[in-house]
Amino acid sequence: MSFITVAPDSDFPIQNLPYGIFSTPDNSERRPGVAIGEYILDLSVVKHLFDGPALRGRQDVFEQSTLNAFMGLGRAAWSEARETLQRILSDSEPVLRDNADLRSRALVSQKTATMHIPASIGDYTDFYSSKNHAYNVGCMFRDPATALNPNWTCLPVGYHGRSSSVVVSGTPMRRPNGQTRPDDSKPPSVTPCRLFDFELEMAFFVGPATQLGEPIPMERAEDHIFGMVLMNDWSARDIQKWEYVPLGPFTAKNLGTTISPWVVTMDALKPFAIPNMQQDPAPLPYLRHEDPYNFDITLDVSLMADGLSKPAPIAKSNFKYMYWTMKQQLVHHTLTGCNVNPGDLLGSGTISGETSDSYGSMLELCWKGTKVVELGNGVTRKFLQDGDEVIFHGFCEGNGYRVGFGTCTGKVLPAHPL
Amino acid sequence: MSFITVAPDSDFPIQNLPYGIFSTPDNSERRPGVAIGEYILDLSVVKHLFDGPALRGRQDVFEQSTLNAFMGLGRAAWSEARETLQRILSDSEPVLRDNADLRSRALVSQKTATMHIPASIGDYTDFYSSKNHAYNVGCMFRDPATALNPNWTCLPVGYHGRSSSVVVSGTPMRRPNGQTRPDDSKPPSVTPCRLFDFELEMAFFVGPATQLGEPIPMERAEDHIFGMVLMNDWSARDIQKWEYVPLGPFTAKNLGTTISPWVVTMDALKPFAIPNMQQDPAPLPYLRHEDPYNFDITLDVSLMADGLSKPAPIAKSNFKYMYWTMKQQLVHHTLTGCNVNPGDLLGSGTISGETSDSYGSMLELCWKGTKVVELGNGVTRKFLQDGDEVIFHGFCEGNGYRVGFGTCTGKVLPAHPL
Repeated sequence: MSFITVAPDSDFPIQNLPYGIFSTPDNSERRPGVAIGEYILDLSVVKHLFDGPALRGRQDVFEQSTLNAFMGLGRAAWSEARETLQRILSDSEPVLRDNADLRSRALVSQKTATMHIPASIGDYTDFYSSKNHAYNVGCMFRDPATALNPNWTCLPVGYHGRSSSVVVSGTPMRRPNGQTRPDDSKPPSVTPCRLFDFELEMAFFVGPATQLGEPIPMERAEDHIFGMVLMNDWSARDIQKWEYVPLGPFTAKNLGTTISPWVVTMDALKPFAIPNMQQDPAPLPYLRHEDPYNFDITLDVSLMADGLSKPAPIAKSNFKYMYWTMKQQLVHHTLTGCNVNPGDLLGSGTISGETSDSYGSMLELCWKGTKVVELGNGVTRKFLQDGDEVIFHGFCEGNGYRVGFGTCTGKVLPAHPL
Repeated sequence: MSFITVAPDSDFPIQNLPYGIFSTPDNSERRPGVAIGEYILDLSVVKHLFDGPALRGRQDVFEQSTLNAFMGLGRAAWSEARETLQRILSDSEPVLRDNADLRSRALVSQKTATMHIPASIGDYTDFYSSKNHAYNVGCMFRDPATALNPNWTCLPVGYHGRSSSVVVSGTPMRRPNGQTRPDDSKPPSVTPCRLFDFELEMAFFVGPATQLGEPIPMERAEDHIFGMVLMNDWSARDIQKWEYVPLGPFTAKNLGTTISPWVVTMDALKPFAIPNMQQDPAPLPYLRHEDPYNFDITLDVSLMADGLSKPAPIAKSNFKYMYWTMKQQLVHHTLTGCNVNPGDLLGSGTISGETSDSYGSMLELCWKGTKVVELGNGVTRKFLQDGDEVIFHGFCEGNGYRVGFGTCTGKVLPAHPL
């Protein structure tokens, strides 16, 4: 228990302690903080309390404008920081509780703070690791018999994304213009995207760097996974359809990707590990691991739209539907010797469940435009319209507490006139 | 003419003045320099001479460990820097010529210097813009009638690459291990890459940043193109074949990409502009420009291998074989509102000419393994073997001088044991 009051349905109890980067009206410097209840603990103010062997002399990681340096320190420093945080925030420890001056400087109301991108993202990779999603898309664009490509069950299919356009929750997202060819009998044209979509994803941040030419073996994968965020990988379905053969999605995806501001650590998620999905065929040896590294994380998607008085829930999914684990993704990514850096972001791909109310994209929810999604009040959608706000929320349900991710939101702006 | 003697076949006369990042045995700080003949002009030593209106007060860009800040200043600063450099290096200007102390501190022999990656590359994109290359690959994997996909002549096909593994010329490149499935009747396996290849490319660095949601229109594209390098986009053909459907090349490309250290500016390349390739169908309006932005840059590839006394020339190509111009690539890339940053790197794709001795990859030179490439001395190759060193050179031939790129080299190391 913390001396700070935390509501039972808060995403940020003392069991969570996610890291983010924030600024305040009276201090525009971006700095690291930890969410606790409705507050942020300003790490730049309490950095001197992190005096264990792994962090002593390195406390300047808590004065940076990104979390990259802290992510780069590795698991010993992460664990020590978590122990320190749980101690200084607990109701039995006086160092912060009984020091009114320090407390007033160190605790900031989340309401007054502005959240920023938590890390400088050197490289962003997106996988395609939900079997239901891959199957659904395969059914729509091919047929159920050949829905999954032969490689899909043998390796975590993924591609390199655009890191410059990864933004923090709340950033408006402009509908892209793009080249499409809806009718094969006519030439392509440039128009505002007609099939603008969200993708319900989660992503993890990478920890310590590796050297080029040095793969990360399975037994060390966990040491390079810092923590997770919610992610909306905005997608222009019509642009993608025309451009993606043979080199994959390009401008259909580079228009923007939104992540939640709070990075929930793997230590906080550990109690919610569940058995990995059964894999058939058995993965090749380099991809095998027996320890559970799947996670029971409830995910829901709401849409706020003109004509609604409150956001309408449109999908409920769960991270547990992932076929490939994050460890498998990272090991496969680096098998060739590809090096990683602190702050690299690896996305899950759209996370769809088995039922039609658990799909993680409008493409699937409206089944390629063949049905409407009811938002209530007579409002319906197939794909996203201008002014729509997409809201993701995610949390793990503990015994009397939640380890949550907060929200990942973004509102659609109209396309630039052509 | 410069007061520094420059051999007629030097890549680095006063007409060139490419930028790079170097260090020396007596000063391990990475700092910007300009190549002139066999020397490097240390910009950190002469920064005070850049006192025109665009650079005054901003000379600290010449004390950074990367060129990103200078690239971010934009065309006015780039042009002013070039004028200053041509003036202070000319044989009629005493400021450097007659100041023995300054000269001895400012001029460093290239032989003693170590070259580093010229910029911190936030995002790396690779295009596929040589028609001959795309056609050749299409013929090999499909057939001549359908060699080019329908989108190829309508937009510059490209994909996001891995920026962490872009390294400077001279860095050894380890043969990757990877998952492949050479025989469809058997399961996939992990082995060292059997079809390891180079790709002869060039790439350009982006200048000033743009905001997310703001496309770069054609009339401003040139202002965001700083300069060019040679690039070897190492490729694992067998890994790519198994993994690339439907999201494109991933681990087959993320193992490493090598660039030459000297960034040749667009101002230096301007005299070598030639008419753009005829495009049929006419590109959509957003991709149209009439001004010549294709360049006559001779490119050659040599291979050094066991059993040879000197590198064997294996291909001679030219940047002029590009179908899409760099301006078209950048405009298409950002049509959706994708933002760019100084130091972003955009690659051309493999540049192949029309004849079989002008192909830019072993895949094409050995035509998918159906013929051998003769290196002399009875040494032959299909794909790259361990110990092979790939050497690119590129230059523009002026009237009595060359504007060259130096070399882009990399030696193949054996794969890690599995």
